[in-house]
Amino acid sequence: MIKVGIVGGTGYTGIELLRLLVLHPEVTVSVVTSRSDVGRRVDMLYPSMRGHMDQVFVTPDLDNLKACDVVFFATPNGIAMLLAEELLQLGIKVIDLSADFRIQDPVLWAKWYGQSHACPELISHAVYGLPEINRVLIQEASLVACPGCYPTATQLGFLPLLETGVVDSSSLIADVKSGVSGAGRVAQVTALMSETGESFSAYAVSGHRHLPEITQGLESVANQSVKLTFVPHLTPMVRGIHATLYARLVDESVDLQALFEKYYEEEVFVDVLAPDSYPKTSNVKGSNRCHLAVCRPQGGDQVVVLSVIDNLVKGAAGQAVQNMNLMLGLPEDQGLKLVGLYP
Amino acid sequence: MIKVGIVGGTGYTGIELLRLLVLHPEVTVSVVTSRSDVGRRVDMLYPSMRGHMDQVFVTPDLDNLKACDVVFFATPNGIAMLLAEELLQLGIKVIDLSADFRIQDPVLWAKWYGQSHACPELISHAVYGLPEINRVLIQEASLVACPGCYPTATQLGFLPLLETGVVDSSSLIADVKSGVSGAGRVAQVTALMSETGESFSAYAVSGHRHLPEITQGLESVANQSVKLTFVPHLTPMVRGIHATLYARLVDESVDLQALFEKYYEEEVFVDVLAPDSYPKTSNVKGSNRCHLAVCRPQGGDQVVVLSVIDNLVKGAAGQAVQNMNLMLGLPEDQGLKLVGLYP
Amino acid sequence: MIKVGIVGGTGYTGIELLRLLVLHPEVTVSVVTSRSDVGRRVDMLYPSMRGHMDQVFVTPDLDNLKACDVVFFATPNGIAMLLAEELLQLGIKVIDLSADFRIQDPVLWAKWYGQSHACPELISHAVYGLPEINRVLIQEASLVACPGCYPTATQLGFLPLLETGVVDSSSLIADVKSGVSGAGRVAQVTALMSETGESFSAYAVSGHRHLPEITQGLESVANQSVKLTFVPHLTPMVRGIHATLYARLVDESVDLQALFEKYYEEEVFVDVLAPDSYPKTSNVKGSNRCHLAVCRPQGGDQVVVLSVIDNLVKGAAGQAVQNMNLMLGLPEDQGLKLVGLYP
Amino acid sequence: MIKVGIVGGTGYTGIELLRLLVLHPEVTVSVVTSRSDVGRRVDMLYPSMRGHMDQVFVTPDLDNLKACDVVFFATPNGIAMLLAEELLQLGIKVIDLSADFRIQDPVLWAKWYGQSHACPELISHAVYGLPEINRVLIQEASLVACPGCYPTATQLGFLPLLETGVVDSSSLIADVKSGVSGAGRVAQVTALMSETGESFSAYAVSGHRHLPEITQGLESVANQSVKLTFVPHLTPMVRGIHATLYARLVDESVDLQALFEKYYEEEVFVDVLAPDSYPKTSNVKGSNRCHLAVCRPQGGDQVVVLSVIDNLVKGAAGQAVQNMNLMLGLPEDQGLKLVGLYP
Repeated sequence: MIKVGIVGGTGYTGIELLRLLVLHPEVTVSVVTSRSDVGRRVDMLYPSMRGHMDQVFVTPDLDNLKACDVVFFATPNGIAMLLAEELLQLGIKVIDLSADFRIQDPVLWAKWYGQSHACPELISHAVYGLPEINRVLIQEASLVACPGCYPTATQLGFLPLLETGVVDSSSLIADVKSGVSGAGRVAQVTALMSETGESFSAYAVSGHRHLPEITQGLESVANQSVKLTFVPHLTPMVRGIHATLYARLVDESVDLQALFEKYYEEEVFVDVLAPDSYPKTSNVKGSNRCHLAVCRPQGGDQVVVLSVIDNLVKGAAGQAVQNMNLMLGLPEDQGLKLVGLYP
Repeated sequence: MIKVGIVGGTGYTGIELLRLLVLHPEVTVSVVTSRSDVGRRVDMLYPSMRGHMDQVFVTPDLDNLKACDVVFFATPNGIAMLLAEELLQLGIKVIDLSADFRIQDPVLWAKWYGQSHACPELISHAVYGLPEINRVLIQEASLVACPGCYPTATQLGFLPLLETGVVDSSSLIADVKSGVSGAGRVAQVTALMSETGESFSAYAVSGHRHLPEITQGLESVANQSVKLTFVPHLTPMVRGIHATLYARLVDESVDLQALFEKYYEEEVFVDVLAPDSYPKTSNVKGSNRCHLAVCRPQGGDQVVVLSVIDNLVKGAAGQAVQNMNLMLGLPEDQGLKLVGLYP
Repeated sequence: MIKVGIVGGTGYTGIELLRLLVLHPEVTVSVVTSRSDVGRRVDMLYPSMRGHMDQVFVTPDLDNLKACDVVFFATPNGIAMLLAEELLQLGIKVIDLSADFRIQDPVLWAKWYGQSHACPELISHAVYGLPEINRVLIQEASLVACPGCYPTATQLGFLPLLETGVVDSSSLIADVKSGVSGAGRVAQVTALMSETGESFSAYAVSGHRHLPEITQGLESVANQSVKLTFVPHLTPMVRGIHATLYARLVDESVDLQALFEKYYEEEVFVDVLAPDSYPKTSNVKGSNRCHLAVCRPQGGDQVVVLSVIDNLVKGAAGQAVQNMNLMLGLPEDQGLKLVGLYP
Repeated sequence: MIKVGIVGGTGYTGIELLRLLVLHPEVTVSVVTSRSDVGRRVDMLYPSMRGHMDQVFVTPDLDNLKACDVVFFATPNGIAMLLAEELLQLGIKVIDLSADFRIQDPVLWAKWYGQSHACPELISHAVYGLPEINRVLIQEASLVACPGCYPTATQLGFLPLLETGVVDSSSLIADVKSGVSGAGRVAQVTALMSETGESFSAYAVSGHRHLPEITQGLESVANQSVKLTFVPHLTPMVRGIHATLYARLVDESVDLQALFEKYYEEEVFVDVLAPDSYPKTSNVKGSNRCHLAVCRPQGGDQVVVLSVIDNLVKGAAGQAVQNMNLMLGLPEDQGLKLVGLYP
């Protein structure tokens, strides 16, 4: 059995990793760390894990982690970059769910994340863990930077359009709606049910940290500069992201449905719905799937792509496990054969 | 006291009209009709009205309505156009919350509403009831067509940009999110809590009935043709609309904040938030206000306008009462001094 | 105009007081205090107040409050007892929405609230502000302790049974469900939407602070000791309390419906529904009403009373305004003619 | 592989059966019937099934079902009783998720379900499918009547108390709260999001169909008559049941925590939480588990049991699969190793 460790096991991506990994047939969760809950049983903090694991939280240090084959970081930004190098030197594979290794340019990273990067030399070794574009690189990687939730939903929707060059890459719009679990398990007034229940609002319109990440990803497939307007919104639900993406067609002869179906025909976790279907986040809740639809309202030159994921699964923990499977040579969907929890 | 009648008092816009009108100091609700609930007390069907009214539902015929000064239609589309003419001939003012008189072109109306119009000759007499652009006409009108909920939020956000010509009117985008009360008090699987709770989805992307209405309204102020991509979404909440509007600046020197503040400085129900504020639907829940914010992410040429209303108030019943006040020469905000029910 | 001050204007009961008082015809809100937001406009923190008030938050000291006629405390427990005496000496009426003066026994208070009482000598001067039982006392009071939200819903449901002695007072059960706004506008993990949305749980079963308050209130009308099992629950909604109350009939001949209707026939804010009706919290959302139903399943000896209120209105701010009206000799329902925001 | 058929595959228990069975290692879903959707792909109606099955709905007749080893009925009441006999005669095992075979007394059944029973002679052959009390009988059964959702949560909470006789069985109270998916995938106004979102109410207080089922189950373990007051409530969430159960202790010396832990120590799906823990429905969402807590507030003679399940899993489809496993000699938890989808 492959031994995995989870650093930062008390947040929502941490518990979601546990949910997936305790049922993964090739893996045993041997270490779960938490600074705040050392010595406490994991299933005391997370009763959903009762009957599935009996570990206690330990401190996140090398001693506790060195016997692992793979270590996941489900930590706030700025933690993984402090520990990754030592783990890698021990031959441990590192899968980072935080933002530490997503941006290739450390200056850009520092600007958006408000701190200088602790190990800039490692960034270029990190592979951006979106399997649909980086599968081969991920298979050979020892350090994978898992994409953010917004970037996953947004890139999967735009990729077929940008790689084929059928749209104008200088005026893209991503209007994205997220459930509140994206805000994390952190005490804050803005994420209270009284603030977010029965209400809808945009936020960070002037600039969200996921913008440079998305732009970087889109430019790498477009092979040209990309200009994106990205507006995130908070939706009164717990899980789910719905990206509504807009682009202007430059090739009006293209069959968009065929383009999308072909682009993703080999992908097990990206699923192009039939024409005139609209994806619902509840259909992918708890699953690692992305449901896509592509439309061209009134036959005009504006393409609308609808892309839904579960932000905690394909947008975080599920994609991390998918990356782990690739890195370890396991079947890509092992432990990820999940049906959406509808209704 | 002015005597008002409400035709179709059993839907959500009907009960919302009642909520507002029973507290209006110049008005008495003398008739409430319902085909399905004749003889039943209104407050049996709607216990929220207990202590506020003791009427019973009556049949929606001329005999019951002829003593009214004003009649509101809170009916499905296709009803008001059958009764309006007779009421008008009796000198009764008619305020229609349905779509019957919103579209000036009866052929276009027939195409989108799937039936031919019963009194096309009356359409040109109807005034489109968006007071912020038609105040004077409304004051003199005897027949007012209240705007739809999506059109209200969308037009109020786009108007300052289009009237001043600072944006390209050929590539507008309205990404609009609505609470489920917009679907009405109608038994249907798609509006069940099990379907819409904890889920988010787009619908009618290929074409929604509010599209021609919005386009007509925007073109009338833009004085040129307008091309709009309109994508409505269903949000897991009961009340509220959040429109996120996108337009490309053609005049990059414009001070957008100043433009919006000036445009609406005399409006009591349209409120431009301070820079870097983002409107929340819960701040206008139950009130007749529209909160607006205008942004220009990263100083680029893409304008983003955020516009929120309560779909049942400024998007329906509240705006109808505002129109009534104008038509009767009452203060425009009478009976509408409402504070949003936050949280 | 009567000048009112609100101490602690940044919590949910504070903003709810503002919502009600800015529309009250006899009152002007002259002071709103907040330690954390001094100098900030109230409507910056609470955009729902835009257009309704232009005050800024000031510090909660005597200098700022001394010109008021009435001061409301919408503070955490333990604050009102520090300031009340000085205000009363200035002839200012004090209405406390916190728990400081609810419990007549200071030793019992200290036990449940974890601190000793700062002015025990004042407690006996405080009138418990449940108008339905203490109306005359409230009219003459200078210090009123407003009941908690659970106690209001629970007592209004039990009172007719206990005052007439038709049930066994030694085995009462109150199974009460609250929306999460009852937890306040405080950053805490347990009140996050991710924790409370789409979930239901009991809490504080072993003992909740509202238990001694309810027991005290029930005993005062029962004229005998009362034994109550009180189980509070957190419900995935923002506003509303639903109390389901159980008692064993000792007089099986009683006509419960008639008893309840008679008991509350003069009460404007307590409303007994028709037989076989079940109250919904959404019917009283935003209003100061309590809807009650009384049932006797299968004609047995178990009485079930259903009692719903809006926890922030009849359970807090609305009842406080009702008390203010009584204390000032105003009509009891002035500023409180509110229709529930359904749907 | 065992071939299973699902009659009535379009409701919420039907789709939940599919979710579980497509991942069950010993089973293949060979037939899914639906009168209304014959010929339509299952994953067109339920996009959450995409990638997991390619069947189309067929008509619910013997021809389509005769090759099955097991047939589940996820139908409205009154359907299974028409088809069960023929299936049983073909040697097919029948697992009924509807109420047709739950009540042993056909006269009582007819009274509560408003129709006479079509095959009363079969009722006594049906085993009530609550494995925690009927495991051996289920293993030998060919016809199993799966318990209702309320009865499952309620009985699992009361069983330890009644079987040991430590409480008075003549004054039990079950105050039970359900998510709205319990109302089914049926177009009805009362289950609209606009009606049930942000609202809480009781219903059917005068008598709910699950009352006789619960009473029958409790009496069979109590070996004496049981008197239960059962009050169901609708909660603004999709999935989950929370039962709050009240009973009066007659043996005050009992260690309730120890009693419950011992009673369920061998049960894989019933889990007694540590003292002072309170179960949350979100911890069992999507899983087949029941979380229990038992309390004795203030050390009095009133026992409070808290019992939570996912109404669609342990309250319906999961329990049905658990029964199938038992009937087929498979490990009881096969296909049911599910972690609750928290958050």
